[in-house]
Amino acid sequence: MPAPKPRPTLAVVAREAHVTVPTVSKVLNGHTDVSSDTRRRVEALLTAYGYQRPRTARRREHRGNLIDFVINELDSAWGLSLLTGVEQVAEDAGAGLVVTVLHNRASLTRRWLDAVTARGSNGAILILSQLAEEHQAELRRRAVPFVLVDGIEQPSPQVPSVGATNFAGGYAATQHLLGLGHRRIAAIGGPEQLLCCRARLAGYRAALEAAGVQPDRELVRFGDFHHEGGFARARELLDLADPPTAIFAGSDQQATGVYEAARLAGRQIPRDLSVVGFDDLVYAQWTSPPLTTVRQPLLEMGAAAARILLRLVNGEKLDAPRIELATELVVRSSTAPPAR
Amino acid sequence: MPAPKPRPTLAVVAREAHVTVPTVSKVLNGHTDVSSDTRRRVEALLTAYGYQRPRTARRREHRGNLIDFVINELDSAWGLSLLTGVEQVAEDAGAGLVVTVLHNRASLTRRWLDAVTARGSNGAILILSQLAEEHQAELRRRAVPFVLVDGIEQPSPQVPSVGATNFAGGYAATQHLLGLGHRRIAAIGGPEQLLCCRARLAGYRAALEAAGVQPDRELVRFGDFHHEGGFARARELLDLADPPTAIFAGSDQQATGVYEAARLAGRQIPRDLSVVGFDDLVYAQWTSPPLTTVRQPLLEMGAAAARILLRLVNGEKLDAPRIELATELVVRSSTAPPAR
Repeated sequence: MPAPKPRPTLAVVAREAHVTVPTVSKVLNGHTDVSSDTRRRVEALLTAYGYQRPRTARRREHRGNLIDFVINELDSAWGLSLLTGVEQVAEDAGAGLVVTVLHNRASLTRRWLDAVTARGSNGAILILSQLAEEHQAELRRRAVPFVLVDGIEQPSPQVPSVGATNFAGGYAATQHLLGLGHRRIAAIGGPEQLLCCRARLAGYRAALEAAGVQPDRELVRFGDFHHEGGFARARELLDLADPPTAIFAGSDQQATGVYEAARLAGRQIPRDLSVVGFDDLVYAQWTSPPLTTVRQPLLEMGAAAARILLRLVNGEKLDAPRIELATELVVRSSTAPPAR
Repeated sequence: MPAPKPRPTLAVVAREAHVTVPTVSKVLNGHTDVSSDTRRRVEALLTAYGYQRPRTARRREHRGNLIDFVINELDSAWGLSLLTGVEQVAEDAGAGLVVTVLHNRASLTRRWLDAVTARGSNGAILILSQLAEEHQAELRRRAVPFVLVDGIEQPSPQVPSVGATNFAGGYAATQHLLGLGHRRIAAIGGPEQLLCCRARLAGYRAALEAAGVQPDRELVRFGDFHHEGGFARARELLDLADPPTAIFAGSDQQATGVYEAARLAGRQIPRDLSVVGFDDLVYAQWTSPPLTTVRQPLLEMGAAAARILLRLVNGEKLDAPRIELATELVVRSSTAPPAR
């Protein structure tokens, strides 16, 4: 094995950044009394040279046994399931769980970063669609291990992350509808820029193609993940000259919008229209009729993220930087063979 | 003003408890190396004499800026709304929010009590149906301020608490159905032993009586708060020789069960059956048809509890030990005049 390349000393970093060694040391140790310009310059060099905040310095600050959980919005059963999964593992580990909601700022805040350091958190589970490079670097420097759940884009291999098999889920949903005899199958996607949504739609298209059904572009619509989006897109689809006999919705919330559009159009589910959702949130079993949907193992994803975090905290190696847990089709009463 | 009565010294407490003064001191300061029998005996005396864990001792331990949130189960939009309300106020106050789920142990655990002390939490919001006297006493002794949200029984005046106007909610729901012309109005209550459920049913009965409608005991059923309970009770009600034309459910989750029972019985909502829920959880607007329901201001209740806690942390006096926030009827599409 080759000897590891020696790292430049802090004196070298200080010289390159045109600051003093104590200033470099302050930045390295996460102190806040350094101007933001200087900090950014020094942080860039420290990252380039692979410096991490010394673990011993961090250990000294350890003041509780805490794990941080950060989420953009906590307004849905989706986030609640992830939180519940994390909480169960944290509880078993005897760790308190600190919950932070970003309220659509969609990015970590300086205040949170400082608070995490101040309370000596063991690490963080981040339920975020994006994590800026600079925040990744800053978390590493502060020696705060972190795990990302989901994410718009395929995260870089340096970022431990947990996801679900979205392509397989879209494939299974469509295959189920094809198996019932449907050929005019519409899909309402979530936001087109999200990787998870594109993966689900790719699964939908692949299943159609495998069954020799030519995908009809008119039958693919994009909304958001919400009820209103599902409602509006379903109304458009049901108004088509040749409407679909089945709709694969991008989320359970969207599926509830499809239900309401069908009711107002006088179509009965599943007799006149089959509907498949995605997520299997807690209320999917309470819709009337109960919703056939693709289950995302959100609780298990939260638990897996927490277990990965605990391994990182203990300095253990991971099997792989990213794991994806299997989705599963849950057949309830909203799907049936087409009437015609 | 009369001079305050002097408190007996720790020596007096020690003598009465048949232990040494250092043991009393240990119990007072929340140390754990005292047998549980001895602790219980000493704690009872300390409580009787009005001893509190000295704030200065606690201040020394202050290590972060944390608030604790404790809930029995975190599996519903109900708990999520309360959590969201608390989180918003905590964030404004720059406090981290530590979430603990009791998983139906329905009571604070020794482990949690010790963790709260260890992390120097500012105080706790407890979403619990019951809070044992001994835990109240222990929280007071450890000088951990706390606020209770909801609760099975009217909490004692020493316990700051937040609730909703359940009687008024039951009254408004029933008045709405009466106003539409319904006379055969059924009610499905939540668990009969819960004070909030009894208050809702009392409101239901009072509205019937005010309208000169004799309450029919056959039309009042008790379930749990869940979908299955609503489903089973609604099936019974719809099977009656003289079935109701409207059902007031004890929760939105129960109402979804009523929807499914109506669908299976071939009755269309609201044409053949009007349904009113309780809570206005996020998915109430996504049922098909959208659910008329009594809104509990859960987010505001969480926020109010957090604000009360911050006042207690600052040593401020409260206006009243308990406040109840107003419920509000939200009329959507599940209610209409009766067909006959």
